[in-house]
Amino acid sequence: MSTTALDAFIAKHLPLAQFMNLKVQAYDGNHLALSAPLAPNINDKLTAFGGSLFCVSVMACWGMVYMRCVDYGLDPDIVVAQAEIEYLKPVAGEIVSQSLEIDESRWSHFFARYEERGRAKIDLASEIKINGEVAVRFSGLYAIVGVK
Amino acid sequence: MSTTALDAFIAKHLPLAQFMNLKVQAYDGNHLALSAPLAPNINDKLTAFGGSLFCVSVMACWGMVYMRCVDYGLDPDIVVAQAEIEYLKPVAGEIVSQSLEIDESRWSHFFARYEERGRAKIDLASEIKINGEVAVRFSGLYAIVGVK
Repeated sequence: MSTTALDAFIAKHLPLAQFMNLKVQAYDGNHLALSAPLAPNINDKLTAFGGSLFCVSVMACWGMVYMRCVDYGLDPDIVVAQAEIEYLKPVAGEIVSQSLEIDESRWSHFFARYEERGRAKIDLASEIKINGEVAVRFSGLYAIVGVK
Repeated sequence: MSTTALDAFIAKHLPLAQFMNLKVQAYDGNHLALSAPLAPNINDKLTAFGGSLFCVSVMACWGMVYMRCVDYGLDPDIVVAQAEIEYLKPVAGEIVSQSLEIDESRWSHFFARYEERGRAKIDLASEIKINGEVAVRFSGLYAIVGVK
């Protein structure tokens, strides 16, 4: 359950996420929270750029799939196939996106499909909150397309 | 119809877009094309990071609204309210997203609403193509929420 591999992945492979200063904040097996400071992600309104909010959101879910695969013993190739985002409120400080918990049976189904076919898909959602209220709502479809 | 204002806006206000090396490629009043090189936007598969593909796509439509507002004589505050993206093929080179043309009556309606209420919304779509085939399909809802 160590998130060192995920921070190392971001640092090694994603220069844009490095520029954003995207880091793992917390992982408990059911939720992953990623954070990025405002400064590199600011816009003309001195709030977070919509593109940055998407990047933190898409990576919170991507990272959740990644961590579950690592916990399962895989070094996976994961891609995002489609995504939706709603911007409900401006984010005027640190960006923190947390993936939402899903029923454990969906993870079991995901890994069963992977074992059967070498590929599997899963829908995940994440939220960015400000003072307890949802500022950004995200959902995405992720696919494991292979392992290293 | 000069796009200098849009390049200047990106350089001045969006450090993430600057890091991506996002630039205006073409604008003809009906389409806006933005480009970004692969290097700062690369991922672990040596193709473009999904977050970068979103940023170029969301800005192609945002910039189209911005340019139309500039052409109309406004210095607008524009926000993206919601967006959807489909990743159909990997992008293994320069990222170029072009906004799709809409019926002129939709722009007329947008500016009529703005004149009436000081706010207006418009849906726009953009595409990233690779060798003539659509690799990324994007759509977003944009709002003009004020002027400077």
